[in-house]
Amino acid sequence: MKGKNSKPWSGRFEQSTDPVVESFTSSLGFDERLFPYDIQGSIAHARMLGSSGLITNEEAEAIINGLEEIREEWEMGRFPLDESLEDIHMNIEARLIKKIGPAGGKLHTARSRNDQVTLDLRLCIRYEIYEIIRKLRSAQGKLLASARNHIHTLMPGYTHLQRAQPVTFAHHLMAYFEMFSRDIQRLEDCLRRVQVMPLGSGALSGTCLPVDREAVAEELGFDSISSNSLDAVSDRDYALEFLAGLSILMMHLSRLAEEIILWTTAEFGFCELPDSLCTGSSLMPQKKNPDPLELVRGKTGRVYGCLIGLLVTMKALPLSYNRDMQEDKGPLFDAIDTVKGSLSVITLCIENLKVKEDRMLQGVMHGFLEATDLAEYLVQKGVPFRDAHNIIGRLVLDATKRGWTNLSSFSLDELKGFCSHFGNDVMPYLRPEKAAYRKNIQGGTSPSRIEEAIKKAEKDLRKY
Amino acid sequence: MKGKNSKPWSGRFEQSTDPVVESFTSSLGFDERLFPYDIQGSIAHARMLGSSGLITNEEAEAIINGLEEIREEWEMGRFPLDESLEDIHMNIEARLIKKIGPAGGKLHTARSRNDQVTLDLRLCIRYEIYEIIRKLRSAQGKLLASARNHIHTLMPGYTHLQRAQPVTFAHHLMAYFEMFSRDIQRLEDCLRRVQVMPLGSGALSGTCLPVDREAVAEELGFDSISSNSLDAVSDRDYALEFLAGLSILMMHLSRLAEEIILWTTAEFGFCELPDSLCTGSSLMPQKKNPDPLELVRGKTGRVYGCLIGLLVTMKALPLSYNRDMQEDKGPLFDAIDTVKGSLSVITLCIENLKVKEDRMLQGVMHGFLEATDLAEYLVQKGVPFRDAHNIIGRLVLDATKRGWTNLSSFSLDELKGFCSHFGNDVMPYLRPEKAAYRKNIQGGTSPSRIEEAIKKAEKDLRKY
Amino acid sequence: MKGKNSKPWSGRFEQSTDPVVESFTSSLGFDERLFPYDIQGSIAHARMLGSSGLITNEEAEAIINGLEEIREEWEMGRFPLDESLEDIHMNIEARLIKKIGPAGGKLHTARSRNDQVTLDLRLCIRYEIYEIIRKLRSAQGKLLASARNHIHTLMPGYTHLQRAQPVTFAHHLMAYFEMFSRDIQRLEDCLRRVQVMPLGSGALSGTCLPVDREAVAEELGFDSISSNSLDAVSDRDYALEFLAGLSILMMHLSRLAEEIILWTTAEFGFCELPDSLCTGSSLMPQKKNPDPLELVRGKTGRVYGCLIGLLVTMKALPLSYNRDMQEDKGPLFDAIDTVKGSLSVITLCIENLKVKEDRMLQGVMHGFLEATDLAEYLVQKGVPFRDAHNIIGRLVLDATKRGWTNLSSFSLDELKGFCSHFGNDVMPYLRPEKAAYRKNIQGGTSPSRIEEAIKKAEKDLRKY
Amino acid sequence: MKGKNSKPWSGRFEQSTDPVVESFTSSLGFDERLFPYDIQGSIAHARMLGSSGLITNEEAEAIINGLEEIREEWEMGRFPLDESLEDIHMNIEARLIKKIGPAGGKLHTARSRNDQVTLDLRLCIRYEIYEIIRKLRSAQGKLLASARNHIHTLMPGYTHLQRAQPVTFAHHLMAYFEMFSRDIQRLEDCLRRVQVMPLGSGALSGTCLPVDREAVAEELGFDSISSNSLDAVSDRDYALEFLAGLSILMMHLSRLAEEIILWTTAEFGFCELPDSLCTGSSLMPQKKNPDPLELVRGKTGRVYGCLIGLLVTMKALPLSYNRDMQEDKGPLFDAIDTVKGSLSVITLCIENLKVKEDRMLQGVMHGFLEATDLAEYLVQKGVPFRDAHNIIGRLVLDATKRGWTNLSSFSLDELKGFCSHFGNDVMPYLRPEKAAYRKNIQGGTSPSRIEEAIKKAEKDLRKY
Repeated sequence: MKGKNSKPWSGRFEQSTDPVVESFTSSLGFDERLFPYDIQGSIAHARMLGSSGLITNEEAEAIINGLEEIREEWEMGRFPLDESLEDIHMNIEARLIKKIGPAGGKLHTARSRNDQVTLDLRLCIRYEIYEIIRKLRSAQGKLLASARNHIHTLMPGYTHLQRAQPVTFAHHLMAYFEMFSRDIQRLEDCLRRVQVMPLGSGALSGTCLPVDREAVAEELGFDSISSNSLDAVSDRDYALEFLAGLSILMMHLSRLAEEIILWTTAEFGFCELPDSLCTGSSLMPQKKNPDPLELVRGKTGRVYGCLIGLLVTMKALPLSYNRDMQEDKGPLFDAIDTVKGSLSVITLCIENLKVKEDRMLQGVMHGFLEATDLAEYLVQKGVPFRDAHNIIGRLVLDATKRGWTNLSSFSLDELKGFCSHFGNDVMPYLRPEKAAYRKNIQGGTSPSRIEEAIKKAEKDLRKY
Repeated sequence: MKGKNSKPWSGRFEQSTDPVVESFTSSLGFDERLFPYDIQGSIAHARMLGSSGLITNEEAEAIINGLEEIREEWEMGRFPLDESLEDIHMNIEARLIKKIGPAGGKLHTARSRNDQVTLDLRLCIRYEIYEIIRKLRSAQGKLLASARNHIHTLMPGYTHLQRAQPVTFAHHLMAYFEMFSRDIQRLEDCLRRVQVMPLGSGALSGTCLPVDREAVAEELGFDSISSNSLDAVSDRDYALEFLAGLSILMMHLSRLAEEIILWTTAEFGFCELPDSLCTGSSLMPQKKNPDPLELVRGKTGRVYGCLIGLLVTMKALPLSYNRDMQEDKGPLFDAIDTVKGSLSVITLCIENLKVKEDRMLQGVMHGFLEATDLAEYLVQKGVPFRDAHNIIGRLVLDATKRGWTNLSSFSLDELKGFCSHFGNDVMPYLRPEKAAYRKNIQGGTSPSRIEEAIKKAEKDLRKY
Repeated sequence: MKGKNSKPWSGRFEQSTDPVVESFTSSLGFDERLFPYDIQGSIAHARMLGSSGLITNEEAEAIINGLEEIREEWEMGRFPLDESLEDIHMNIEARLIKKIGPAGGKLHTARSRNDQVTLDLRLCIRYEIYEIIRKLRSAQGKLLASARNHIHTLMPGYTHLQRAQPVTFAHHLMAYFEMFSRDIQRLEDCLRRVQVMPLGSGALSGTCLPVDREAVAEELGFDSISSNSLDAVSDRDYALEFLAGLSILMMHLSRLAEEIILWTTAEFGFCELPDSLCTGSSLMPQKKNPDPLELVRGKTGRVYGCLIGLLVTMKALPLSYNRDMQEDKGPLFDAIDTVKGSLSVITLCIENLKVKEDRMLQGVMHGFLEATDLAEYLVQKGVPFRDAHNIIGRLVLDATKRGWTNLSSFSLDELKGFCSHFGNDVMPYLRPEKAAYRKNIQGGTSPSRIEEAIKKAEKDLRKY
Repeated sequence: MKGKNSKPWSGRFEQSTDPVVESFTSSLGFDERLFPYDIQGSIAHARMLGSSGLITNEEAEAIINGLEEIREEWEMGRFPLDESLEDIHMNIEARLIKKIGPAGGKLHTARSRNDQVTLDLRLCIRYEIYEIIRKLRSAQGKLLASARNHIHTLMPGYTHLQRAQPVTFAHHLMAYFEMFSRDIQRLEDCLRRVQVMPLGSGALSGTCLPVDREAVAEELGFDSISSNSLDAVSDRDYALEFLAGLSILMMHLSRLAEEIILWTTAEFGFCELPDSLCTGSSLMPQKKNPDPLELVRGKTGRVYGCLIGLLVTMKALPLSYNRDMQEDKGPLFDAIDTVKGSLSVITLCIENLKVKEDRMLQGVMHGFLEATDLAEYLVQKGVPFRDAHNIIGRLVLDATKRGWTNLSSFSLDELKGFCSHFGNDVMPYLRPEKAAYRKNIQGGTSPSRIEEAIKKAEKDLRKY
């Protein structure tokens, strides 16, 4: 049989694999990325096999040295990948045997690809969670730096994309700080479920050999070992939960991207991006487009697709391992790269966004953004809120008919015509630019509260 | 203007709402479910308004009594819903004003529907998380009870739905126990982000009025208050994270449903469901179908759809509140009901599944499930694993050609023909029914390990 | 056995259904909607049974009369639904037997619920496709009416939400006309696959009885009969394809909703919606929000969720019918109602949108929207396009530095300093408001082309 | 400015693109695949520019020759890709200018990347639709060939994965033939909307230059030209519809994969796959797993993810082109490759599936698959179907209690005890293996009907 011996499982097979099947089932295209984790896991496994007496110490040492040489080859770009060896795990094992002889064949003692691949994936996700948290913290740092510069920069706050009440730009930026904090917290929670060492679960039922699972877990820095071998090789919850966390994170980025895109339109004109973060048009010479942010927004779909894709793949699979689960890697790696790229771009945009305070302030002055405060003024005079709301609503309608865009032109007498509770002290309430200062409550937009929030955030961030 | 005054915001409006728009934007169809949470939140808010001096103590008391009467009306099914009042919040407020007069109009002091609705939703999700965890624990209890009865029940373990190695039925059930434990852990983690009190965030920027946010949080049992008003009214992360947790949970249920459906086929014949959990065919008189489990499997799509639906809705929304976010309730409530129903059904099926031990054992005896142990036997004789694997592979091939379905008919001499390391002590390794006992490792399938796992699980579960 | 006889399949059952299972598997909550289609299909089936001699003509007549009475009861709201009868089909059959006696038990001759339910669903979708097409045509009519009024209304055309080139508002509206035309075409294509009559497929393998399938198809207005009984009861392609068409349609609506939301912001100010299509804020008295359009945008997620939900449900189901497929109805009906409601609202908004031509024109004048035409001017003078693009790009940069927002202030001499090919005839090219008129090409934005397009569209639409 | 001149739009820019942005926005990684279509489209465009007099005939000829040389370079693998040139279109243009000098800069006359990229994508999808249809027809051919061999092969037909009624294996295979026919029909319908030529739409508003759009459409084999320039550059409906068609197709493949996986289990044992289409286990020497089919099933999630990903990306984008839309290519190409690979594998499996007729027949004999026919026998004796169903149900229950798995052991007297209408002619109805032959109705499972269906299908297929 041609090529019969090239597969690690060819003993009971009489035909070699059909080339169409070989290329369809090969995972080399994406699992190459697991290389360093596979080496790391195999070294820990070999060391344990040695110390447990399952192989001799000399064999263990030979294997470990061989694996370290292989890692070096790979880092140098000199590792020869063989497509016919199915996946990265078998490539490494074959190379090891070539390097150190039959002893290399002992590395797979008490191990299956089923527990090996979920180990590698857990090591990989752990690494990437740390990377993404680092990038989130970096983005938070830029948000804070900008917020500190804009504690007194007024801008219209929106609901329904209609001007609502004045806020400060710092307050607005800090909303994203909060979102990123939750993203970090969610990834950290996910990490608890990533940090479980599956080796020793074998193909599905464990192993007869007296391995020391705790030792492997300790060497690799895991918090615990898996409790059920069937579950251990069938479980991809950690990948799904990670993808769900990344999807929510991308949703946050899509909102920020959307806002900056709006702010840099001619119509809003609140901000400008530097040339270096924009691209032009092949046809229209005047164009300067916020392409990177549009891509972040667009790529949100891609990450959602990765999440739903893996959820679909896992649906209704009987225990334990099924090859369907190989389809975890494509969406995972794609989502990781998309999120990391998007975070880099968003961070650059936050850092380099040029704020046009005058345009923002103009927005605050027009659109009756002081109306709510005026209603709350009446509340403090004893008017039930519902009545106050109605009075101010009619005031706004009247002003609109006069062509006014705020309430500052009403005289006190005119005001009293709407409600007798208006008094001399109402005047500051007619000035929209004062409204943000009045929200002096935890979470509110007043500069002192924002300053407080920034200080707390800076302190938190410095911990890392 | 007809009906002009029926809306709480009609002051600045000159036309009444178009009836098409009224029915399209009404959320009464689903937010009625928030009724008890809205009352609960409003009572806490009113109490705080009173103690902060924003309304008089008498007013506070009147409001609270009014709200409690309203709650009673609702519980009795006597609350009159008015479709033209848009949503449940406005229905309650209008009813309150009708009951206690103008003082009722003071309840909305320092509050917006934007912070009110996210408060209600958080209270609702908190309640449902506890409910779902309770149901998960109940299912775990039934898994444990059944596992305890089947510590020695051998069954074929599968990979790729091909017989792989023997496991015990208890071991198999305990794999689902593990999944449900992770589901609980994930929901508990989510709860940390649900347990944040948003009131005081107003429509988007906070409030001018000196409210006591901490007091409201404490009364309602929240862990903390939200840190940024813009974020607080724009945030639905907690709902998304909850839906992601429910999606993974449904994935687990779909796997168990799939397995029981397989086990109750004529072909597997491992289990039987009682008549009371099956339904028949309108055409075929002999049919007895596992419909409830098929529905659980099918409804997995529904819950995934809820998750992706809300992720899509939230994509690229500019801050702060947008009406799109009203579309959070449909998918949330649908997913909650689907998950709770599915858990009830699955729990019944676990409890009432009749196991046919003989059919399971028959499966263990045929299919060479002892092959891996035999390879590990050779490893212990010093044969490198890869060579051992190959030798046993050829042995299986030889047996298959003789029409055998296990290796027990080989004589020692024949075995030695394949590998000289086979010795007298190999005989027990030829018996597949012994293999499960040999996996005496944490997480392995040996009865003693399973008993250990069950005891630990029982102890954990008793805590609740 | 309590309740044993209430089920049409209880012959071989010894226990009654568990109440938890009964309520979980009941589909009455949503399949009530199939009532009229079930009656329609049953009448055609009964008539065929009669004319084929499978039942007597008297029996057929009794059944048909009974069914018509039942339809009337239902239309009057007097049909008594019995939850324990599982679904609408069994409710109707039970009612029929009650009305006309044992002959009613003959209606189910040569029919299974499996072929019956897919027939009903096909009838329902056919009806809804016609309804939705009618609504799309109505929306197209409003687009055309508005376009006709705005053939000369200039507005900035955008790419990347940055001003790009002038277009007319009519041209912009006609882009949505095109989208809706494709939506209609797609639904019509889907209809070809809906229009297949499945009755006679029995539960899965057909029937022994000599039914006349073609006669049923003809009476019900189907184009053809299904070719394979296993496929016929397992097929939900038509529902999936319909949901895919609805998802693309909602995507279109979400884009139009997004645009109108942008146009009605204070910042764009291109359009205004009447009070009757907006709602206000419970807190902020001045607010007038485009809520219905936000809901359309938000509900896009819901319809996407319905599509993916059913795709997930259908994944990897073995033939033939599985109960999972009952989960087709929830997403289908939800998507249908959402799309119909959204189309009604969008149509109202198109009809009542007040256009502010001056604000649009102002947008055209600022942002160098004439730059491309100027480059094409140079091309006509023989400058390679890439060079022309570069020259105009530098011109724009120079103007920007002078604080200009269009190119009209450059003198000819200054222009010649950038490129010697500029001549006296360049002046009209410096006026952005002229640019839209120059795109006199099929599909272009010049008034004459638009007028042409509108006329053609009006003619097409009049056909219906 | 470093690198300033490398971009085709750098005229108005003062900074070069940030390298992070450059790599994030580059589409070279995937749009290289559009190379041949870009060349094809550009040649047609250049020829039209020449014949319209927009460039000289010499220039047109030079451009066309240059493009053909470039195509050759690419086919030879000698085309030098420059990452800094953003995308494949700019790479080709830059190469052209290098080859033929400034005349190359005229190729982009009257064209934007916005209309160019959608043209390329349409050409690509058209090609791939033909490819996929070809593969579907090839799979249909293998289904037919196998069906012809199994017109008389009986197997249990299933509903709810419980044995229901006998069918033939040919009938079962032909169900998939029907699904693939619908897939082809759907792709052909989609093609109508792909076959629209967008060039001439410019960036968004058309072009001032007198281009001949019809000529380009004709040269490229399109059916029509786009009607609205704004719509033309914003439209990705055709890609979404194509992805929806591919998703439904993958759903079909996932069902067939699931069935073959079930049939090749030890428990069903209906079929066997050759070694060449299976893979083994790295740990368990006896394993032979249907991995390729599991991957097909698993990759269904991937294709669904591509569909939902692009739907999300397109949601709520304002007109006209936005960079988000670059994210169409990733999911499209991924889905195309996944579907083509899956079809190849499925076709191989259909072709090489070894059927074990004896195991199938055994399944037919046990499970009361004759019950429905027996009920229909009573119907023909005048018993109302509902009563007949009930009588046979009780018969089945009685047999089950005696430990029987079919009804053939009942004596006529015993039968008469259940219903007096049983007569001598009942005997053939007690034999399950006869039941499939009795469904002699269009779409039914009787051999003569199947033979008819196969002949018709063979004739249809021969047309291509």
